[in-house]
Amino acid sequence: MTESLAPFFSPTGVAIIGASQDPRKLSHGILKNMLRYGFQGGIYPVNPKADQILGLTAYPDVGVVPDPVDLAVVVLPAPLTPEILRACGERGIKAAIIISGGFKEVGGAGVALEKECLQIAQGYQMRLVGPNCVGTMDLYTGLNSTFVEGVPTRGSIGFVSQSGAVCGGVVDLIGDKGIGFSHFASLGNELDVNETDVIAYFGAHPQVKVIAAYVEAIEHGQRFIEVVSQVSQEKPVVLLKAGRTNAGAKAVSSHTGSLAGSYAAYQTAFKQAGVIEVEDLSALFDVAWALSCQPLPKDNQVVILTNSGGPAALAADTLATHGFTLAEITPEKQSQLAEKLNPSAQVANPVDMLGGAEAHDFEHCLNVLGDQPSIDVFIPMLVPQSLVDPADIARAVVENSKTIDKTILACMVGEQSISEARAILHANKIPMSTYPEVPGKVLGAMRTYRQWRQRSQTGPFVFSNLEKDRVAEILAQTEQRVLTEAESRPIMAAYGLNLVPGQIATNHDEALAIAEELGYPVALKIFSPHILHKSDLGGIALNLNSAEALKTALQRMVATITTAAPQAEISGFLVQKMAPKGMEVIVGMKRDSTFGPLMMFGLGGVYVELFKDIGFGIVPLTPSQALEMVASTKAGQLLQGYRSKVVYDLHAVVDTIGRLSQLALDHPRIAEVEVNPLLVLPEGEGTLVLDARMIFSEN
Amino acid sequence: MTESLAPFFSPTGVAIIGASQDPRKLSHGILKNMLRYGFQGGIYPVNPKADQILGLTAYPDVGVVPDPVDLAVVVLPAPLTPEILRACGERGIKAAIIISGGFKEVGGAGVALEKECLQIAQGYQMRLVGPNCVGTMDLYTGLNSTFVEGVPTRGSIGFVSQSGAVCGGVVDLIGDKGIGFSHFASLGNELDVNETDVIAYFGAHPQVKVIAAYVEAIEHGQRFIEVVSQVSQEKPVVLLKAGRTNAGAKAVSSHTGSLAGSYAAYQTAFKQAGVIEVEDLSALFDVAWALSCQPLPKDNQVVILTNSGGPAALAADTLATHGFTLAEITPEKQSQLAEKLNPSAQVANPVDMLGGAEAHDFEHCLNVLGDQPSIDVFIPMLVPQSLVDPADIARAVVENSKTIDKTILACMVGEQSISEARAILHANKIPMSTYPEVPGKVLGAMRTYRQWRQRSQTGPFVFSNLEKDRVAEILAQTEQRVLTEAESRPIMAAYGLNLVPGQIATNHDEALAIAEELGYPVALKIFSPHILHKSDLGGIALNLNSAEALKTALQRMVATITTAAPQAEISGFLVQKMAPKGMEVIVGMKRDSTFGPLMMFGLGGVYVELFKDIGFGIVPLTPSQALEMVASTKAGQLLQGYRSKVVYDLHAVVDTIGRLSQLALDHPRIAEVEVNPLLVLPEGEGTLVLDARMIFSEN
Repeated sequence: MTESLAPFFSPTGVAIIGASQDPRKLSHGILKNMLRYGFQGGIYPVNPKADQILGLTAYPDVGVVPDPVDLAVVVLPAPLTPEILRACGERGIKAAIIISGGFKEVGGAGVALEKECLQIAQGYQMRLVGPNCVGTMDLYTGLNSTFVEGVPTRGSIGFVSQSGAVCGGVVDLIGDKGIGFSHFASLGNELDVNETDVIAYFGAHPQVKVIAAYVEAIEHGQRFIEVVSQVSQEKPVVLLKAGRTNAGAKAVSSHTGSLAGSYAAYQTAFKQAGVIEVEDLSALFDVAWALSCQPLPKDNQVVILTNSGGPAALAADTLATHGFTLAEITPEKQSQLAEKLNPSAQVANPVDMLGGAEAHDFEHCLNVLGDQPSIDVFIPMLVPQSLVDPADIARAVVENSKTIDKTILACMVGEQSISEARAILHANKIPMSTYPEVPGKVLGAMRTYRQWRQRSQTGPFVFSNLEKDRVAEILAQTEQRVLTEAESRPIMAAYGLNLVPGQIATNHDEALAIAEELGYPVALKIFSPHILHKSDLGGIALNLNSAEALKTALQRMVATITTAAPQAEISGFLVQKMAPKGMEVIVGMKRDSTFGPLMMFGLGGVYVELFKDIGFGIVPLTPSQALEMVASTKAGQLLQGYRSKVVYDLHAVVDTIGRLSQLALDHPRIAEVEVNPLLVLPEGEGTLVLDARMIFSEN
Repeated sequence: MTESLAPFFSPTGVAIIGASQDPRKLSHGILKNMLRYGFQGGIYPVNPKADQILGLTAYPDVGVVPDPVDLAVVVLPAPLTPEILRACGERGIKAAIIISGGFKEVGGAGVALEKECLQIAQGYQMRLVGPNCVGTMDLYTGLNSTFVEGVPTRGSIGFVSQSGAVCGGVVDLIGDKGIGFSHFASLGNELDVNETDVIAYFGAHPQVKVIAAYVEAIEHGQRFIEVVSQVSQEKPVVLLKAGRTNAGAKAVSSHTGSLAGSYAAYQTAFKQAGVIEVEDLSALFDVAWALSCQPLPKDNQVVILTNSGGPAALAADTLATHGFTLAEITPEKQSQLAEKLNPSAQVANPVDMLGGAEAHDFEHCLNVLGDQPSIDVFIPMLVPQSLVDPADIARAVVENSKTIDKTILACMVGEQSISEARAILHANKIPMSTYPEVPGKVLGAMRTYRQWRQRSQTGPFVFSNLEKDRVAEILAQTEQRVLTEAESRPIMAAYGLNLVPGQIATNHDEALAIAEELGYPVALKIFSPHILHKSDLGGIALNLNSAEALKTALQRMVATITTAAPQAEISGFLVQKMAPKGMEVIVGMKRDSTFGPLMMFGLGGVYVELFKDIGFGIVPLTPSQALEMVASTKAGQLLQGYRSKVVYDLHAVVDTIGRLSQLALDHPRIAEVEVNPLLVLPEGEGTLVLDARMIFSEN
C-alpha cells in the first residue's frame, strides 16, 4: 500500500509543470532545488514558452516529456489543474504534487475544484500530494520538489507536515544545527495523500528511524490509530498538534478548511496509538533527534557532569518533573572521582567540576562512572568559560562515550561559543541543547515511549451475554431522540449491565405495590420525557423507609415539578430498591467526529466537572486500555483504595466500559450514553447503574 | 539603604587584588574587562610581583593604592581573604567583591572563613558581594568586574543571579540578540549582599526598568516579600527559581550550601510580592525584554498578521492557553484589508496574507487595524520565504507601529535568515521570537503583572476579641508538644473561633449527663494524648440519637481502641453536639523555614491530598489575600455555589484564616495548626471547628 507513495520521494523522473524562467517565481526555485542536491533521475521543465530553463530542455506539454518520468510537480493557477492532471494521467504519470493554492482553503469553487481533481486522479490511479503545499524532499535520493532555501543535514528523521510554512520554517530554524533528516513531506490540503499514508510509508522505509509530524487535523481517525499504533511499535512517532484550543482550531480551520474533532479525542488517539505528543516546535525536533541517535533510557537514574551548579540545578528540576532522579554515586566512586578533579569539586550528583573544568575532567568522570549499572543516563553540561574550548569538551565527550551503553544528552549553555562543539557532538550522534531545561523534557518523552513499547497488551473484550438484536429491535421502535433512565433500562439490561431492581408506576397505588414487593427503603424518581436532569427539579427522593414516606415524597415531587416545570408531562414514577453503599462514578460515550465513539470515565457528582478529572478511550478498547483509562484518573485511585479506604470493584468498572463500548460499536445510531452515577460496589460485588440517559442521532 | 551598593556598579575607582600578568588567569580577564568598556574611574591592579599589568601601574598592596578608590575585587585563594578585607577596610574601601570560591560551598572550614570575613567587613561598615561569584557589570558606567567574555547590549534590564555560571551563560546565549541590559550582578554565596538588596537597588535606579532574577534560595523571606512587593509596584520583577523540586533543591544545596524552604512557600511569596515567576531561562529574558520595551496589554484581544497559517495556529493555541483570544475584525475592516492583499488571503483573524506577503502587506494591515480600540495586541509573524527579505518586513513593522499605542510582539520562524530582521526590530524595541509559542507565554506573564498592579488592596485584618495573654498563659502551662482537639479548644476559643458545643467526660455517666445537657443527636470522640488520627482507630462516632446509642458507641470505641492501640492512654471522651449540615474544608498553618507562617486552605476529607487542591498564603495576610487564597482553589469554587448548589459563608472562612494567622504571629511557639475539618455553614451562618490539632516547637 505504501508503494504508491515512492515516486514522491524517489521518482525515476520529474516533470515540473509551469517551470518558469523568471528567477523571482517559485517554480524557478523548485527547478533550482531539483538540480542542486544530486538527484539522479530525469528533470523536465514543462513550459510552452521556453526552449531551455537552467540549462535543461523545456517541453511544451507533459505529453511529450520523455521517459523515465513518474512524478509531476504542478505549479500553475488552480483552475488549470484538472486539465494538467488529465494530461499527466494520459502520459502515465502515477504521482503528482500540486503546489498551487486556491482550493479548499478559499471555500466555494475551490472545494469543487478539489473534488474534480480527485476524481480525475482516481480515474488514472494517480496519487496526489497537496494542493496548497511546498512539496517533498528526500535527503538520500536528492529529490527536492520544494522552493525552500537550503536543506537540513542528512539523517534518519522522516518529517511530515500539513503546513508548508512549518516545513520551511523548520529548515531555516534548525538547518545549520546538524539535526539529521531523511525526508520532508508537506501535505497541504491533503486531498489524497494524508499524514497516515506518509507515516505508513516512513514506517516501511529503511532510512527512517524516527517519524516527526506536524498535524492540524486528521480526517480518518480510526485508520490513523490503526496504522500508527503498528508503526510506533517499531519506530517512534513524535507529533505536534496545532488547534488544541478553540482559538487554535479556528485558526487551523481558516487555514486549510479542515474541521478538527475535540482535542481530548486527539490526545486519547495519540496515547492509544503510541504517539509521543509534544507541546511545541522546538520539542518536536529535540525529541525526534534524541530518539534518532540515542538509545532509550533503561530506567530513570541520571548523572549530571557539569562545570557549573546553577544550570545543573535547573536541569535537575526538569528531570524531576519528568520522572527522572539523580542517581546515587557510591562512596567508592566518589573517591575515585575526587582523585583527579579540582579539590573543591562536588563529587556527589550533580558532579560539579567547577568553572575551570577541562576535557580531561569530563573524560575522567565518564571513565569512572561509565560502566555503573545503576546509571541510565549521562548529561554532560558546560557553561563556556573564557579559558576552556567547548570543542575540546565535545571531543572528550564523544571519545569517552563510545563504549558507554547509556543515553547521553549534552547541554552547553551558550550560543556564540558553542557552534563548533555542537557540530562535533551532532556529527557523532550526541544531541546537544543550549538550555538546561531541555534534557529533562526529552528524557520524559523517551521514557513515555519506552513505557508504551513495554506496556502489557490484552486481547479484545469478549462478552457472551449481549443481546444485539434485541437492542436493534428496541431502537427500531423508538422514535424519541432522547431516552431517560427508565426508557434506557431495557437497552442496558440487554448488554448485561446491572440495574437496581425497580419498576415504573403510573400512580400512587402502583408505586406502593412496587415498593412493597421490592422491600423498603426505596428510591423514587420522576419519569418524564421532558426532564433530563431530575435532581435539579426535585425529581429524586432517596431512602424512603415506609409507605408513609413514599406517599409524602410522591406528593411533594408532583407539586414541586408542576411548579418548576409546568410544561413537563409526567409519565410516571420509577420506584427502585435503595442501592447499597458504594462509590459513584460516571461512565459515558460520545461520538467524536474524527475518531468515532469516545468513552469517558470520571468521579461522580459535582467533582467531575470541577476537577476535569476524566479518563478517555477511543473504541474499540482492549480491557487493558479500559483499565488504564480508569487508572489514569483520581477517581481510579479512589476505586483502588486510596489511603486504605474500601477497595472497589475495578474489574466490574472495566467490564461496564467494555459493554458500553460494544453497544456503541453495534448501534451507530446511539450518539451519546451517560451512566451517571454508576455505583461501584466493593471488590467482587460489581456495579449498578443508578441513572442513565441516551441520545440518538436522526435515523 | 540602597546607597551602600552603588560602588558595586558605579565606583569611583577599583582595586583588583590578585590581578595577574598571566593571560590564562581569571584575574587577568577581569582587568581586561575593566579596561574594555569605557569605565572612567581609577583602575588599580594590586600584585606585589609586578610593576605594570596591561599598561597599568601595579601596586604591591591595597594600602598604597591612590585615590579615588571605593571598590575592591578580590581574586586570591580563600584563606587570604580575611587579611585582604582588613587591609581594604584600613584603606577606607567600603565595598568588596570576593570572586574566589572555597567558602560555604565546601563546608567545614569554609563556613568559618565566611563568618570571619563578614565580621571584619561589618567592623569597617564594608559591603560584600560573593564569595564564589563572577562579579558585576554596569552597562552605563562601563564597570565590568567579571571575567565573562563579551557584554550584552545596553538597555534597561537589571539582572541579578545567585549563580555566576548563569550570568556567563546568559551573556553567551543572548549577547548577540540585541536584548538590552543595564546591570549584571552575580552574588554567589551571598555572605552579605543578597538578591533582595540588589532588587531594592535596581528598584531605585533610574536606568533600570525591569528586574530579572535567577534565585536558588532566599534567606530572609519576610524581608524579600516586603521589599519586592514595594519594588514590583513600580517595576516588574521577573524571576526564575532553581530548586523547585527535591532533586533541584538537592543540587542547589550541594552548589551553594543553601537550604531552601518549600517550593510552595516560594511560589506563594512570589505571588504575594507581585513577582512574575517563569519556568525556564529562555522565558526569563523573553518576558523581561518584552516588559522593558513594550506597554502592558490593555486587555486580551490579539490580532495575528502572518504569511503562514500553521505557525499562526500554533501561536493561537499558546495565546488561548494564556488567556488571550483572537480579536474579531469587523466586516468593514475585513473589506478594507482585502482591498490590497492577495485575493486568496484570509482577512479574518489570523490575517493570513499568504506565503508571498511583502512589507507593504504588513504595512497595509497595521494601517487598517492600528487604531481599532477593540485590539490590544498585534503579533506580526513571518516564515521567511526565498523571495521576501525579512529585514524589509522588520522595517515595515517598525515604521508602521510608531503611532500604534498597543503591545506589539513579532515572531519570525527562522534562525539563519532572520538575524538582520531581529537586529532592526530589537533596536526599535519590538521584541522578536523565533518560535510561535513564545508570544502567548510572554503575553501571559505581562497580563499577570498587569492584574497584580491593578489588584484591589485591603487594609490588614482587625480583630477585637483576641485574648492574646490568655493563650500565652495556656502555652506557658503546656508541656506537651502536640495538642489534640480537646486540648486545643481553649486556644481556638480565645482567638474567637467557633467551636461545636461540647465537653470532656471521663466516664459513661459524665458522658450521658453532658449529652443530656447538649441535647441529642451528639458526636462522641476519643480524647487521648496518643491518638492524633482518631477516625483511623475508630475514635469517632457520629449521629448518636439517644442515651442508648451513646452508651453502645462508647463501649464499642473503648473495645476497638484497646485492641488497635493498646499502648494509647484514654484520658476521656469529647461529647459534642452534632454539627449542622455544611461543607467541610481544611485550614492549616505550618511555619516555613524561609518565609515563616504559611497558611493552607483546601477541600476536606480525602480530596485535599488526592487533588493537591491547596491555596497557600504567607502571614501577614490581608483579607483580600486570604480571600484570593481561598478563591484560587476548587474548594473555593464549591464554597461560592458551584453549579448553583448552596452558597457557603466565604467571609467566615476568610475570618477564620485571619484569626489563625494572628495566632501564629502572636505565638511563635506554635509550629503547626490544623483545623480539619472546618465546617463552613451557609452564607451568614459562620464556620465551626469540628476537629483540630496543634504542634509546638521546643520551648
